[in-house]
Amino acid sequence: MAYTVIAEELREALAKDDLQTMEQLVADMQPADLAEFIQEHPVDINLKLLSCLPIKQRAETFGYFSENDQRELAEHMDESTLANLFIHMNSDERADLFNLLEEELKADLMRRLARNEREDLRRLSSYEEGTAGSIMTSDYVAVPAQSSVAQAFDIVRSTAPDAETIYDIYSIDHMGRLMGATSLREMILARTTARMDALMTTELISATVDTPQEEVAKLISRYDLLALPIIDNDARLVGIVTYDDAMDVAEQEATEDIHKGASVGRLDDGFGRARLRDLYRTRIVWLVLLVFGNIFSGMGIALFETTIAAHVALVFFLPLLIGSGGNAGAQASTLMVRGIATGDVGVSDWARLLGRELLVAGALGLTMALAVSPIGFWRGGEEIAFIVGTAMISVVVLGSLIGICLPFILNHLGWDPATASAPLVTTLIDAAGVILYFSIAAAVLDLPGLF
Amino acid sequence: MAYTVIAEELREALAKDDLQTMEQLVADMQPADLAEFIQEHPVDINLKLLSCLPIKQRAETFGYFSENDQRELAEHMDESTLANLFIHMNSDERADLFNLLEEELKADLMRRLARNEREDLRRLSSYEEGTAGSIMTSDYVAVPAQSSVAQAFDIVRSTAPDAETIYDIYSIDHMGRLMGATSLREMILARTTARMDALMTTELISATVDTPQEEVAKLISRYDLLALPIIDNDARLVGIVTYDDAMDVAEQEATEDIHKGASVGRLDDGFGRARLRDLYRTRIVWLVLLVFGNIFSGMGIALFETTIAAHVALVFFLPLLIGSGGNAGAQASTLMVRGIATGDVGVSDWARLLGRELLVAGALGLTMALAVSPIGFWRGGEEIAFIVGTAMISVVVLGSLIGICLPFILNHLGWDPATASAPLVTTLIDAAGVILYFSIAAAVLDLPGLF
Repeated sequence: MAYTVIAEELREALAKDDLQTMEQLVADMQPADLAEFIQEHPVDINLKLLSCLPIKQRAETFGYFSENDQRELAEHMDESTLANLFIHMNSDERADLFNLLEEELKADLMRRLARNEREDLRRLSSYEEGTAGSIMTSDYVAVPAQSSVAQAFDIVRSTAPDAETIYDIYSIDHMGRLMGATSLREMILARTTARMDALMTTELISATVDTPQEEVAKLISRYDLLALPIIDNDARLVGIVTYDDAMDVAEQEATEDIHKGASVGRLDDGFGRARLRDLYRTRIVWLVLLVFGNIFSGMGIALFETTIAAHVALVFFLPLLIGSGGNAGAQASTLMVRGIATGDVGVSDWARLLGRELLVAGALGLTMALAVSPIGFWRGGEEIAFIVGTAMISVVVLGSLIGICLPFILNHLGWDPATASAPLVTTLIDAAGVILYFSIAAAVLDLPGLF
Repeated sequence: MAYTVIAEELREALAKDDLQTMEQLVADMQPADLAEFIQEHPVDINLKLLSCLPIKQRAETFGYFSENDQRELAEHMDESTLANLFIHMNSDERADLFNLLEEELKADLMRRLARNEREDLRRLSSYEEGTAGSIMTSDYVAVPAQSSVAQAFDIVRSTAPDAETIYDIYSIDHMGRLMGATSLREMILARTTARMDALMTTELISATVDTPQEEVAKLISRYDLLALPIIDNDARLVGIVTYDDAMDVAEQEATEDIHKGASVGRLDDGFGRARLRDLYRTRIVWLVLLVFGNIFSGMGIALFETTIAAHVALVFFLPLLIGSGGNAGAQASTLMVRGIATGDVGVSDWARLLGRELLVAGALGLTMALAVSPIGFWRGGEEIAFIVGTAMISVVVLGSLIGICLPFILNHLGWDPATASAPLVTTLIDAAGVILYFSIAAAVLDLPGLF
């Protein structure tokens, strides 16, 4: 059933307090759908819905909820219900939930876990946010490298109910070091007497617990992996990150890049649910910084006060020229930043890309100059048409070059190239464009200029 | 081995024409790495590298190459080599390659396929680009719904070498209609005598051949699927889309959205490899459209020529004010567009988001007014400080509201909300900001205004 249909029926069942229908509907619902449904409802209703689910399914569904929803629900559960849920969750989601809770509650939950699970939780919850360690799960299947396929199958069968994926089977040595990996497909096709170490791939893609999560997502996407094994500093296998988590990370990173492209800072919640305070905080910093950037444009204008006073008509074309330069520059920087992010453009490409951009920007500027010159002619005759046309080409070329170079320069300085946002590039080009435009005007009109 | 190391060794082997080393290196290389390597090399070298690979691996690797590389290599292969490669490719990648070739070559390759493969290819290559049909593969595992687990295992084993994934097994009826799906994990845990229709999930997520590819990627990501079954209009199972293709689509769509956010049109190749002509074409349309938008700002300024002539100092603050409004508006529209794209923001949320934005923008405007008023005071005294402060709040609030509303309006008109790019929003706000600023100035300075 489509989500909208189920959601409607569930709303009706809630209104009638029809527990039986609720149980049926909730049992058939996809965890992602239930996670969306509970966002619209108050915590007491959501606790009731959750209690309709058998504990295993409840634990799985809980992991789909947003951090805020998880925290709120956990705070409103009685302790034994929470503990029961906690014990049944996947290791990685459990660690994430654990990090959201109050110290007192943490200690209590810890006590209720078996010893090996307790250590597992302590380890998983200790990794810094944004690293492979913080998103990996310890629910993977590992077998001794020297075991036979038949022995490995026994291990797979006994681990299957809890493992996040059983489709990649990792071979380890007696120290727990990662030796290789075998897909379940290969195991099914192999003779049961074959040895795993003969079957396994040793040219393995892996990452360490400290690898940044966006790097992990990129590896999984580039090499089409189902899961990426994560090793510690002694090359011991300590977890895996599965493709579905990589997809979430990739979406999150794309959102962050898109926001950065408009000078918006990191927002933990989605825009629709973010707190007003957070929205203010993520936006004000760059806005104020750019105010001071824009003051340079104003100062540029002040330098040409006599030029302007003599030809007020020049101001008419000011937004047009600096706007066009800013737009071309924003295009160039956006293409560049995304190219660097997807790996399509390398840092060594710098000179080649600059040369290409010079050609493209020249053509763009020429086209736009042809578009505006007639308006210049109409407003102020030949001279103005010439000034506006020349200024247009110069501003568009300059803007595009700033747009291409800035991400590279930032990258070189160790900054995120995405800091070269459209607003930053536009602001820089505004200031440069003002000087360029009025200098050309002063020269052509034979008025006192800067130089 | 890391890619950079292999690439270096492969370059050396190529320089020495050491075929044996080449073969060893290429055989161990990940397809994605080889695809990157060949981008830097001429076609004759790439053909040599490909011929080092056994045919099955060669066919797999070929699917990783970009469309341009595939087309170029195919054109330079002799016919029998190409046909051999073609026969060994996955069904979906074969259909993609097929669509890149000349009519004559197509006919020749068709003749070399077995009859059922020929029909499969004809069908797969017929779907419109951007639909589920165009990215799906027909290499899936389907079993009759009434078969036993043991029988299903036999089918899995016989299909395993060619299937894209064997981890989701689809149950179909005698008409080929999709009845349900069972994971290999469930099959492994079940008794071999159990029937598949008792084991399978019937609450299935699926899509039709016409479903847009971004919708397919969203379903796979939302429901954490390994593969999404694709059905035709008669509910018959005709293909699957696997998670790795969904990841590629998601990345591609994110790139498109990011480019749109800077008014850059659709670019088929990455920025680094795009043809100059395509770069020009994707950028010029909006640039010229925005030129005409910017003329409105100029006309706004022209309306206030007397105000400006009386107080040239007002021009000093013009870039600052319209720039700030544009930046705040670009932030708002970007947050909104991405919120709509990820499904975080619904169209029904309109009024609530507008209310929130009013509060946030008010606070942002106030902060920025406080930042610039002292400069206004320093440049022109109390009156100018007041004008600049008031104009700043108004422009930032107005800009933010335009930023929030525009994506909604576009969406409502059936356009892509991402058309509300930073440059478009900035241009609109520039025009509105000019009018607002000079109107406030004219009113305060008691000069003739518009109203």
